[in-house]
Amino acid sequence: MRAVVMRKNKLVVDNVPVPTPGPGEVLVKTLACGICGTDLHALRFAETLGGGLARSGGLYGMDPNRDVVLGHEFCAEVVDYGPGTRKRFKPGTRVCSIPVLKRTKEGASIGYSNEHPGGFGEMMRLSENLLVGVPDDLPSEVAALTEPMAVGYHAVAKARLERCDVSLVIGCGPVGLSVIAALKLKGTTPIVAADLSPRRRQLAVEMGADMVIDPREKSPYEPVMAAEWPRLGSVITNLGSFLASDFPIKSDMKYLIKSFYRAFGSGRFAGRPAVIFECAGVPGVIDGIMFNAPRNARIVVAGLCMERDHIYPWFGINKQLSLQFVQGYSDEEFATTLRNIRKGKLRVQPLITGKVGIEGVAKAFEELRSPEHHAKILVEPWRN
Amino acid sequence: MRAVVMRKNKLVVDNVPVPTPGPGEVLVKTLACGICGTDLHALRFAETLGGGLARSGGLYGMDPNRDVVLGHEFCAEVVDYGPGTRKRFKPGTRVCSIPVLKRTKEGASIGYSNEHPGGFGEMMRLSENLLVGVPDDLPSEVAALTEPMAVGYHAVAKARLERCDVSLVIGCGPVGLSVIAALKLKGTTPIVAADLSPRRRQLAVEMGADMVIDPREKSPYEPVMAAEWPRLGSVITNLGSFLASDFPIKSDMKYLIKSFYRAFGSGRFAGRPAVIFECAGVPGVIDGIMFNAPRNARIVVAGLCMERDHIYPWFGINKQLSLQFVQGYSDEEFATTLRNIRKGKLRVQPLITGKVGIEGVAKAFEELRSPEHHAKILVEPWRN
Repeated sequence: MRAVVMRKNKLVVDNVPVPTPGPGEVLVKTLACGICGTDLHALRFAETLGGGLARSGGLYGMDPNRDVVLGHEFCAEVVDYGPGTRKRFKPGTRVCSIPVLKRTKEGASIGYSNEHPGGFGEMMRLSENLLVGVPDDLPSEVAALTEPMAVGYHAVAKARLERCDVSLVIGCGPVGLSVIAALKLKGTTPIVAADLSPRRRQLAVEMGADMVIDPREKSPYEPVMAAEWPRLGSVITNLGSFLASDFPIKSDMKYLIKSFYRAFGSGRFAGRPAVIFECAGVPGVIDGIMFNAPRNARIVVAGLCMERDHIYPWFGINKQLSLQFVQGYSDEEFATTLRNIRKGKLRVQPLITGKVGIEGVAKAFEELRSPEHHAKILVEPWRN
Repeated sequence: MRAVVMRKNKLVVDNVPVPTPGPGEVLVKTLACGICGTDLHALRFAETLGGGLARSGGLYGMDPNRDVVLGHEFCAEVVDYGPGTRKRFKPGTRVCSIPVLKRTKEGASIGYSNEHPGGFGEMMRLSENLLVGVPDDLPSEVAALTEPMAVGYHAVAKARLERCDVSLVIGCGPVGLSVIAALKLKGTTPIVAADLSPRRRQLAVEMGADMVIDPREKSPYEPVMAAEWPRLGSVITNLGSFLASDFPIKSDMKYLIKSFYRAFGSGRFAGRPAVIFECAGVPGVIDGIMFNAPRNARIVVAGLCMERDHIYPWFGINKQLSLQFVQGYSDEEFATTLRNIRKGKLRVQPLITGKVGIEGVAKAFEELRSPEHHAKILVEPWRN
């Protein structure tokens, strides 16, 4: 089959063997597969991804000196079955899957592996138990965005948001935009987003940011620290939803009491709690956030920085900050994300800024290095 | 009054003015005051403590070019009252306090301040509202340990421990020992502790560590990852306490189900969740923990590293680690710690390894740099 092969830190088009589906596995034809920032990293930092991560106990484990077919954000079509499959989906059915092959308990990566080719080739093998059917009315290119959108959904879940939290998203590349969409879905407000690129700030607004900031012009921490506790109108709205809910949870109660106090009392709070999403993945950003963050801020690190980075622990200690590093998503989060896209709760169409065939992948990788032109480029290996 | 003055990164004995208690404040005589690792840091990194932390939004804000009287782990005796006090404690009453003066909403530091001398001088001013009475049967030297023991209590509280967690303490200086004591009080098991010094490992056992490790001989992560889920006996014990409790909380339920499964089922879990306390405060330790930690580990950073440090964010991302930086304690945690010491729930006597008068402080600072000789040295400014 034809595929884009990562070979010695270069992308080349070549013919590679069609993967054989093992027990419990299916053979699929790739319909669409997004290019992820991590793919760009993989090309640059193959040694790190292959060696260091595996040694520290991670999922990835590929030999950078051998061929790799990248691509882990895919929608595909069932072609054939391996032994011991239940044949749940008929040939021709469109499916998505988390990019993991369940051969071991931990699972093996699809797309960051020497054994299991990813979606930048014509065919893949997937674990039947992990397949999620794609509804007929959902275009394949949109379904392929399930994976990157699940990343944001998971990051927001790990942030354990309460209603009184103010969210700040640093970096509006695909990860940041996915986080913004998940925050919007969650109903949290305000959502402040910062990026140097006007194009990305515009996309951030389309995905649901309430306020976008060019950090060269203004500190994005200012509106976070100045975010007001809601006043009377909000208290009544919240009281209504609070009374209507079956299980008034603790965070709602706290929010309500604080809102009440703010609306009627003379007391002033130090500020609403801040949750800051690091979605840039560039050295120095975590340090900048730790320096600027308000006391007790929770920092969710979703951007993948592949280089050695520096921090000043005393900023963290002095302000009792927390850093929650996040990656991936659960099977449920992935399936929920596909449902949310289907129901129109997550608008993903604005993110698709380009489509290429196999021949166009290397050029697309180049173009993605500039933030002004693209958000998500989809690879359609069947396209000429 | 006589005091040890930090002047141009040196400790000198000098006469300084007796502080005047302002509105709501009392004048006290220092009975005992512990030397903290942060005091050693302050002498070395005065610029950092004074400048950088203040700029990033912290509590400290002292001018390193002006005199500072250090000392924030104290027991004192009420001498006189400022205006507007309730005179809750008679002169001669022994008291403790968190080292904060409530002149502003945030509070000003006592002991890291050019204005408010700490316990390495004969007298201090304290906020009356923050005073906690010391019971008659508690020696002043023991009461002075309330502050460092509250640090461990707070760190453990911020870790939000569940019963199935395995705890690992990296570094058994005063902070690590305080954390071990708080873990023991909490009833969590096992408590694994690592330190290069035999003397400190011995103290760790005295404070309640179940297993102590010299990291040059064996990886302290091995016993953490190998910690077994409890078997039948433990399940029954837990079932008993679970049924006896009024509010079965979620973590108990989870623990119970997992214990049950482990005792009766054939399933194997990836390992018990790990909580790792960084109590060394030396550059490189956080990086080492992130490299070695098992997946999903929660790292609580309690050691105060005053230098620029490095991390590899991808270790955190790949294993979804979290870092919770902690500092200090709340008023309640401080008062609870004094009660726990009084009731004998926290054994602190083994930590007291030396006592000096004002003249001996500079030498004590030197001696504390070696881990083999001392844990806590108390300054008794009234002593000749």
